[in-house]
Amino acid sequence: MHNIKSPRHLLSTAELSLDDIHHLFARADEFLAHHGHGHAVSLKQQLLGKTVSNVFFNDSTRTRTSFEMAAKRLGADVINFPVEHSSLNKGESLSDLVLNLQAIGVSTIIMRHPESFALNTISKQLKIPVINAGDGNNEHPSQGLLDVLTMRRHKHWIKGLVVAICGDIAHSRVARSNIPILLKLGAEVRVIAPQAWLPQDYFTGQVKAFNDLADGICNADVVMMLRIQKERMHQNDWPEEKDYFQRYGLDCEKLKLAKADAIVMHPGPMNRGVEIDSAVADDLKRSVILDQVTVGVAMRMAILEWILK
Amino acid sequence: MHNIKSPRHLLSTAELSLDDIHHLFARADEFLAHHGHGHAVSLKQQLLGKTVSNVFFNDSTRTRTSFEMAAKRLGADVINFPVEHSSLNKGESLSDLVLNLQAIGVSTIIMRHPESFALNTISKQLKIPVINAGDGNNEHPSQGLLDVLTMRRHKHWIKGLVVAICGDIAHSRVARSNIPILLKLGAEVRVIAPQAWLPQDYFTGQVKAFNDLADGICNADVVMMLRIQKERMHQNDWPEEKDYFQRYGLDCEKLKLAKADAIVMHPGPMNRGVEIDSAVADDLKRSVILDQVTVGVAMRMAILEWILK
Amino acid sequence: MHNIKSPRHLLSTAELSLDDIHHLFARADEFLAHHGHGHAVSLKQQLLGKTVSNVFFNDSTRTRTSFEMAAKRLGADVINFPVEHSSLNKGESLSDLVLNLQAIGVSTIIMRHPESFALNTISKQLKIPVINAGDGNNEHPSQGLLDVLTMRRHKHWIKGLVVAICGDIAHSRVARSNIPILLKLGAEVRVIAPQAWLPQDYFTGQVKAFNDLADGICNADVVMMLRIQKERMHQNDWPEEKDYFQRYGLDCEKLKLAKADAIVMHPGPMNRGVEIDSAVADDLKRSVILDQVTVGVAMRMAILEWILK
Repeated sequence: MHNIKSPRHLLSTAELSLDDIHHLFARADEFLAHHGHGHAVSLKQQLLGKTVSNVFFNDSTRTRTSFEMAAKRLGADVINFPVEHSSLNKGESLSDLVLNLQAIGVSTIIMRHPESFALNTISKQLKIPVINAGDGNNEHPSQGLLDVLTMRRHKHWIKGLVVAICGDIAHSRVARSNIPILLKLGAEVRVIAPQAWLPQDYFTGQVKAFNDLADGICNADVVMMLRIQKERMHQNDWPEEKDYFQRYGLDCEKLKLAKADAIVMHPGPMNRGVEIDSAVADDLKRSVILDQVTVGVAMRMAILEWILK
Repeated sequence: MHNIKSPRHLLSTAELSLDDIHHLFARADEFLAHHGHGHAVSLKQQLLGKTVSNVFFNDSTRTRTSFEMAAKRLGADVINFPVEHSSLNKGESLSDLVLNLQAIGVSTIIMRHPESFALNTISKQLKIPVINAGDGNNEHPSQGLLDVLTMRRHKHWIKGLVVAICGDIAHSRVARSNIPILLKLGAEVRVIAPQAWLPQDYFTGQVKAFNDLADGICNADVVMMLRIQKERMHQNDWPEEKDYFQRYGLDCEKLKLAKADAIVMHPGPMNRGVEIDSAVADDLKRSVILDQVTVGVAMRMAILEWILK
Repeated sequence: MHNIKSPRHLLSTAELSLDDIHHLFARADEFLAHHGHGHAVSLKQQLLGKTVSNVFFNDSTRTRTSFEMAAKRLGADVINFPVEHSSLNKGESLSDLVLNLQAIGVSTIIMRHPESFALNTISKQLKIPVINAGDGNNEHPSQGLLDVLTMRRHKHWIKGLVVAICGDIAHSRVARSNIPILLKLGAEVRVIAPQAWLPQDYFTGQVKAFNDLADGICNADVVMMLRIQKERMHQNDWPEEKDYFQRYGLDCEKLKLAKADAIVMHPGPMNRGVEIDSAVADDLKRSVILDQVTVGVAMRMAILEWILK
């Protein structure tokens, strides 16, 4: 008989079971299905009395706001912990910071951190759950979940779906959080990138790698363009911005190589004219980029409910 | 039969009907009339489940806090979108930003923007209402509404009231949002400014312009002093700070030229000793400057209710 | 018969009566005793409809977050007033700022200010209560209250307790807020510091001053280490960091001079290796530093309830 159980963190999509994934998809779908004032008011009771803290060491208004919205819709209080002003500047360690937040009484810590696996260490010190909102080049699990759910809502099933992910795969936590879910659900996953941006031994045998966009996109059901980190462009072996767009940027011509009803995704914010052309991004018959944002809030509601109830 | 109607924005006071104005005044008066704990608690049900987002591209703690207070009093959630940290810095367009906020699910966007009419463009792209909290030199409609309601609460009617507005009229969105309401309700509107700060063809025929404070203030019921943007002072044809105060700053002597019971207004924050003397600003028999702040919250509650219910 | 009474501020622990202290301790203890979802939800009704404003002129994420948590747990709305962006930058006075916040309708102002006694002046201008969250080198009353309550929860009574406070006593608002409560409740208070950091005539006759840690700590029940402001280290008559740790930093060896069951306290954030060794700070049999954080939220709930209900 034990009543001290370790909390349910969300650090990685690789550690999610099929049951977890199906549960989160089902709950997010339900949050998306119900609308109207009465529903919104009743949801406010779900996490009433809970407090969600956002601790973002990197700029990400978009992801932080999505979690804030999700928490508030379920009635939780939100404390945005301003890292730039925090006592970390006074020499406090990350470990002291999170132990303090736990002692203050927050129900969960949602953290973005520049170092890969930084949250794995922290989570072991805490009795409250930690949600990874992006750790270095490692994972961004809520993004992976919302992306695959968006695909399922548009394509109805994932099994057999051909998903092409294009961009700086080696440094993409978005890719790294999408792929385990896609593989678990039976999709065919392709990654497309210049050789320098392709990781070695990347999900070997299960993911097909392409240097040429035309090859990789051929017959795809889903084309996911990753955001280019412009600061990576200035290094020797990486392409110039204009050259990149010519070879890897998605425009209407290249999109014709995919299936006729292929959908286009992007985690945002977009660099228009770098990785994606505006004509594609704004074509609401193909682009589901704003749907990803809407599904994102519902998925984060599902995650918070799953972790806190 | 149509169930898709365009949302009710608040971009300009010029576009408000007399009915709109009377409705907003009546509701704000009611919010001001009722007090006490029970009332405060029951108001929290009004906009429960709604989310108000503040997007301020210019510093304005005062206006932002007033909208935040109004929203929270009515039970809405508030998301303060920090523009300095936003993905706009990563090259995202304003249009992408607001479409994202809409996709996240906010109920309305309250925006301050440095460019005149920037919100008119944005509002056409959105299905959710936009509230102008100041766009360049154009308008600041909630300020106009709260100012005229403050006059009515002190003077009981607007028709026939002599209102003298003094300062940088050409660049004042406060003036530009007050005047349409005042004219619609039958006030006599005067503007007082150095020639360089008087706009050409300003509400021609309906507003009287004065270069001399003594002339303009004579017999006024309301004297509204505008905030001087000190950065405008350094240009050739504009007066020095000290000289400005001598000619256009309001002190007790100059106030004697107005009606004996004239009230003094200022949108804040004040430059004491530049456009207004402390002896006037702090004379609670004449100055209604802090009343404007209190009326402002009630007016913004009325606006949010009008737009969101 | 009067119904205008002056509000109950919290500016200093020196002005608290024994009844006030016992009431605050009792309420904070009750907030700490009750747990669980139902309790958390019922607390949300306590201050529903009230608005707490945080105005922090100095960086203090820790204290601000603690007050924010306390307010939200009791159902109050919180407005964090960003001082760096405020109209104070536009030349507005502190007095204008707080009168504006009062006019906006906040229920109380929690303020940290770099000048000692700055809040005493402000509180006389306001009809709403002011809570001192640290004013210069003067006081930090909520910290004093939470510290002494933490001692009582671990030691069961304060009368006769030997409390040794070590660090920059002369500039410590933590010391200055602890000592009046400790003396009022009958503790024996000792302060330990280099001569340059010992104030002249400090609670003369009631507090024993020591230059030597070994002397001061001998037989102590409570050892409270103060945070070293490193910027004070660079002046002539103050010790070097390393030398300071050798003479005044708390490690396991020095702690052996205190009572065998002495507890160790620190207001945080800690400079590990400067005023305290990690082996002491992290020894949960002796260190109650994280307890202070938890007690702090409950104490601030008690303070807000006491001031606002």
